[in-house]
Amino acid sequence: MSESAGIAYCNRRYMPVDEATIPILDPAFTKSDVVFDAVSVWDGAFFRLDDHLARFHDSCDTIRVTPPVSDDEIRQIMAQCVDRAGFANSVIYILCTRGRYAGGIAFGDPRTAENEFIAYAVPYYWIVPKDRVETGAHLWIAETRRAPDAAINQRAKNFNRMDLTRAQFEALDAGADAPVLLSTDGFITEGPGFNVWIVRDGQVVTPGDNLLEGITRRTVFDLCAMAGLEAATADLTAEDLRGANEVFLSSTGGGVIPVTRVSDQAVANGAPGLTTGRLSDLYWRKRAEGWLTTPVADLLQPEVAEAASAE
Amino acid sequence: MSESAGIAYCNRRYMPVDEATIPILDPAFTKSDVVFDAVSVWDGAFFRLDDHLARFHDSCDTIRVTPPVSDDEIRQIMAQCVDRAGFANSVIYILCTRGRYAGGIAFGDPRTAENEFIAYAVPYYWIVPKDRVETGAHLWIAETRRAPDAAINQRAKNFNRMDLTRAQFEALDAGADAPVLLSTDGFITEGPGFNVWIVRDGQVVTPGDNLLEGITRRTVFDLCAMAGLEAATADLTAEDLRGANEVFLSSTGGGVIPVTRVSDQAVANGAPGLTTGRLSDLYWRKRAEGWLTTPVADLLQPEVAEAASAE
Repeated sequence: MSESAGIAYCNRRYMPVDEATIPILDPAFTKSDVVFDAVSVWDGAFFRLDDHLARFHDSCDTIRVTPPVSDDEIRQIMAQCVDRAGFANSVIYILCTRGRYAGGIAFGDPRTAENEFIAYAVPYYWIVPKDRVETGAHLWIAETRRAPDAAINQRAKNFNRMDLTRAQFEALDAGADAPVLLSTDGFITEGPGFNVWIVRDGQVVTPGDNLLEGITRRTVFDLCAMAGLEAATADLTAEDLRGANEVFLSSTGGGVIPVTRVSDQAVANGAPGLTTGRLSDLYWRKRAEGWLTTPVADLLQPEVAEAASAE
Repeated sequence: MSESAGIAYCNRRYMPVDEATIPILDPAFTKSDVVFDAVSVWDGAFFRLDDHLARFHDSCDTIRVTPPVSDDEIRQIMAQCVDRAGFANSVIYILCTRGRYAGGIAFGDPRTAENEFIAYAVPYYWIVPKDRVETGAHLWIAETRRAPDAAINQRAKNFNRMDLTRAQFEALDAGADAPVLLSTDGFITEGPGFNVWIVRDGQVVTPGDNLLEGITRRTVFDLCAMAGLEAATADLTAEDLRGANEVFLSSTGGGVIPVTRVSDQAVANGAPGLTTGRLSDLYWRKRAEGWLTTPVADLLQPEVAEAASAE
């Protein structure tokens, strides 16, 4: 099967991702009433698939939706999307939307809705321009603040991203690669699609509040334990970022990515950090070794795959 | 023309609103990167159309999008939607989306996007069950807070409504009709689709911060001036609401709506307030008299209308 823009599972059937749509009256659009997760496939294997599924269910529970498909069905749909798209390297999205509900367009009862499941596989991507993975990214500390958990629970992975986009404009206008947002309390939270880390005094540190707890963030904690590095969560300020020995990002879209500039100022000597490089190498080596991976092929049910190839 | 679920203008053509869709990869969905406005038509006439258009442009400016259509075209499209739907009473939505942009699904450059315009007319609705307009609504002070302007500028009318929906669940679970949200600072902001007012010591008061400045809110200030009532903005707490002589809501979806219970407690004697009733009566009387209204028929260009009826 040749490369494509991607394959979606939408309205209970597979289709080219560019043909998949949602109604403009769907509350998933008009109220951003939807949660999602995003899992990477590298060299034909999912990474931490069950961890992503568990977090997806946590997100669903938080906004009170239930996917109308079992976990086995979700795994099968994800494998089908990436296999039909012909991707060796991919990011697969899974979404649960509130769905339409009775009582009119605007203010019906969301408790009566029939929740819906959507999935799609797209080519693997990096959350900063790919060459920055080698040379280091320029991170911008935005004026825009991250919406607090008391309003929008950021542990539920969601599309209410107007704050992230506003911060992204700040970063791009300044010539930087990506923004990081402070909480309303003034502490570092996260950027669009990634967690932020610093290395200081030999310790690897990341924020713990008002953010999505990334699966790659969890992986960095695991890798630090393997490498004998001390890792912890702490409240971090903009000054902590500027004064760090190293800064890096963690994301499903790129793994461990060095940051060499913060708001127009070099981090330490301006080169990617040694600890960052060690963690990045370890991340890709462990994946290549099959650590916590699930081959896509192992999930494909033969009869479903055959039906696909006959289409 | 018979009644319908509504008519949309989407992808530069008119269609039944239930057939109008957006791509699942559109940032208007995946990042809720869109602003909108909603204008009412009652008895065949728009209310404060140009005020809504001015606010729509303010919202667009805030998130840095530009509708790819002129104001004359927007007025024409709105009139066509409501006319083709056959509605005497309607709410017409206008949206400007960021649109797709280069650089991949997740983290391209939004400054390069081609912004898009969508409109649709749906039947007129009330933001609480309609009988509450007579009997009074039960308003619930939610635990969920409104996302602060420092994160999401609520003066730009937007679909990042996860906080509003979470608060709506609180209200419905408690048996109330609708929620009102406090700011992170603890002051009353707004509810889903409406502003909140109290009457105390003969003064009509509404909050001024961290909220959308409703066109009906502006109208209430105008009506107060006509009626010789003193009106003002002030920081209001939950206690101010519970202790008020009267409480009411203002919305494009229902006008001036009395609140007779706040979080399970009667407002004053539990009956709709006299000042509230006076403002509601004045609202509908002034509209019927043609104050600040624009008949739909006056906007319809004959040649477009003829092309429509020939379809």
